[in-house]
Amino acid sequence: MREAIPSRLIEKKRVGEELEPEELRSFFLGFLQGDVPDYQMAALLMAVHFQGLTPGELECLLDLMIHSGEVLNLEDIPAPKVDKHSTGGVGDKTSLVLAPLAAELGACVPMISGRGLGHTAGTLDKLEAIPGFRTQLSLPEFRWVLEEVGAAMIGQTEEIAPLDRRLYALRDATSTVPSLPLISASIMSKKLAEGLQGLVLDVKTGEGAFLPDLESSLALARTMVELGEGRGVRTSALITSMDVPLGRAVGNGLETREALDCLAGNGPEDLADLSASLTGEMLFLGGLAANLEAGVARAREALDRGAGLERMRKLVEHQGGDPSVVEDPSRIPAAPEVQVLEASAPGFVTGISPVSLGYGVVELGGGRRRIGDPVDLRVGFVLRVRPGDRLEEGDPIGEVHAADASGLRLGMERLGTAVRLGEEAPPPGAPLIGERVVASG
Amino acid sequence: MREAIPSRLIEKKRVGEELEPEELRSFFLGFLQGDVPDYQMAALLMAVHFQGLTPGELECLLDLMIHSGEVLNLEDIPAPKVDKHSTGGVGDKTSLVLAPLAAELGACVPMISGRGLGHTAGTLDKLEAIPGFRTQLSLPEFRWVLEEVGAAMIGQTEEIAPLDRRLYALRDATSTVPSLPLISASIMSKKLAEGLQGLVLDVKTGEGAFLPDLESSLALARTMVELGEGRGVRTSALITSMDVPLGRAVGNGLETREALDCLAGNGPEDLADLSASLTGEMLFLGGLAANLEAGVARAREALDRGAGLERMRKLVEHQGGDPSVVEDPSRIPAAPEVQVLEASAPGFVTGISPVSLGYGVVELGGGRRRIGDPVDLRVGFVLRVRPGDRLEEGDPIGEVHAADASGLRLGMERLGTAVRLGEEAPPPGAPLIGERVVASG
Repeated sequence: MREAIPSRLIEKKRVGEELEPEELRSFFLGFLQGDVPDYQMAALLMAVHFQGLTPGELECLLDLMIHSGEVLNLEDIPAPKVDKHSTGGVGDKTSLVLAPLAAELGACVPMISGRGLGHTAGTLDKLEAIPGFRTQLSLPEFRWVLEEVGAAMIGQTEEIAPLDRRLYALRDATSTVPSLPLISASIMSKKLAEGLQGLVLDVKTGEGAFLPDLESSLALARTMVELGEGRGVRTSALITSMDVPLGRAVGNGLETREALDCLAGNGPEDLADLSASLTGEMLFLGGLAANLEAGVARAREALDRGAGLERMRKLVEHQGGDPSVVEDPSRIPAAPEVQVLEASAPGFVTGISPVSLGYGVVELGGGRRRIGDPVDLRVGFVLRVRPGDRLEEGDPIGEVHAADASGLRLGMERLGTAVRLGEEAPPPGAPLIGERVVASG
Repeated sequence: MREAIPSRLIEKKRVGEELEPEELRSFFLGFLQGDVPDYQMAALLMAVHFQGLTPGELECLLDLMIHSGEVLNLEDIPAPKVDKHSTGGVGDKTSLVLAPLAAELGACVPMISGRGLGHTAGTLDKLEAIPGFRTQLSLPEFRWVLEEVGAAMIGQTEEIAPLDRRLYALRDATSTVPSLPLISASIMSKKLAEGLQGLVLDVKTGEGAFLPDLESSLALARTMVELGEGRGVRTSALITSMDVPLGRAVGNGLETREALDCLAGNGPEDLADLSASLTGEMLFLGGLAANLEAGVARAREALDRGAGLERMRKLVEHQGGDPSVVEDPSRIPAAPEVQVLEASAPGFVTGISPVSLGYGVVELGGGRRRIGDPVDLRVGFVLRVRPGDRLEEGDPIGEVHAADASGLRLGMERLGTAVRLGEEAPPPGAPLIGERVVASG
């Protein structure tokens, strides 16, 4: 009796019925064309949050998102196209390490990344800490850099998955971001538009992760692996711990410096470990290593001898950045005020809160509360300790890098809160790299 | 760390936390003022659908809705102000009977009603079947009719509960109408802005009701009774059966005729019963009867002797309608095509679907699929049978009133589907008037 109008489709989802592909198509493409207003999409997204999506609905939505824009065809580049995506952590600068490293080892890495929001930073902001670096390339420019360098790192363009971009802005404003199927479709739509052969997913778990519990992280990983494999892209996921920040630097420019140190073979152990593991996955999935172990070993060996650094120099140069920064990371603009926080009493470092440090960067002006906020790329923290370290009174805990004296005071307070001290040594934390998720069957 | 921005309040509701009065105020009044966009309200309403509202949140929302507009002060009218609200049924024209009847018996009835939508019709459309009848009065006009007649029947004005009107339009478009707390707040905000002493709620249950199951109907009744009593309005609710249409006429003008027949003492038994019961409640709640039984008996006696008819004539006259219609209901504009459906074989009437007949009227052009659709007030059905009746071949089942020959064909088909015939007599149906709900404690 009633017509298939948008409100009827919202009702179907609200009561838990499955939407037909034709219904999803009319609703989501209608939204993209302006026929379905924002408020109806917002209601549907919230209903999806509560009712979920069936596997069939998710496949259909993903297809609509991918094909709402251009799908890259990189067939004329002979190297296997592989990429990595992380669900976002504090201090995670692995993209800057693994893209040039994998390219150096024979892969082609067409990486499309995002900006920081909330307590996690984004690859684009870190790249832009390099003077002159352009993250907004046209697709022809992107292709040219890929052909010349073997890796290119840009922001989402108008042409790639425009439906995802429209939906994400609405989800951000309506508190419908943390929906497992919507997260999966959003991530995979962008990556599957890159024309990949292989994709590794770094799904964070723990205090600083988007999804704090292991259960949800595993479910997200499994869903995304199935979506990728279902479209002919070899996909795996690593569940990795985000109970402490990755590496020692937190804050855009500081993280870029640390990534360049790591590319030179001088990175902190956890960052080097994770970067080598993810690069090894990329080599294996792209058919550049006979098995996973060989891929990881090759990546680790190359990283330790600084083999990716020259490739990074070339990438920076081709994307308009100052290549001298790669050899001399101190040329990255630095904050004017730096102060070291010292332990006021002896004790053990029992934990370092990634969330507190992440929001601390936002408070220092180095992150965004909302999309579009300006960002001070110079500010942040550099840790001098790890959980389990024993400190005497006066030992350095970490550095605060701030734009001015008031930022310095605030940062010192935030750092003091984030680094927890206790009288007893803490139990060992979760291993950095946990379960590996691959397609079932 | 995060500010109390609208998306944060949506998040609180989404995860099941209670919103503070100040948060509800900023969100809902922000919406009314245009600071909170429709899409954020749509997301919140869908989250409310799934998470509900706590009693405190519901009280707060109701207050915001009532005080978003004008609250009538009818203190200078000495008669007790009482009203009735129905959750909507098929063939329910009791408002047209009980408003003049209660006024005749000493009450003041400031009734603000709605229009038909979907399978149920609305009081305003029925009134407008009377040539010249104006349902859109200004508040001073409304007050004048009340003073002169003791009853006035108008549509929701700009001044009364504007927040409810804005929310209802959005709920209609986003499939968030069937949410118990939102229904309660919507109904009660309008009624509690009328400045009443007493209010009776007719909460329908059964196939043709908005809430088909008894459980939900009872919960809605209890919630609304508590909300009314909590604001000093004596409130009761009757749970009434909507398994078959009320009375014999379904369709605006046809229902108006039947209501006038009923006011003249010649109504069908079920309509007269329910009208008298609800009028009796109004008399009792308004302090015009010593107890409920006395109120109902007085209403029934007055109805049977046609005591409300002259009051209805006065009401029609004061609201610009043609008063001669009241004595001669055949002056209500009639459909040009009328045909009687006859039984094609002997059998029992086992049921009459209110939903099928209600949507049948919509298909004949006499109802709305969407707010704002034009309506043909002449079309509809007049039943000649009730469930349990035994028919011989050729016995009349009912009449179809249509605008043209194609409507007539469609209507005959719909009537034939709606009236179910079988070989055995059906079991007795639910009693028309079920449980009476009053404040606990």
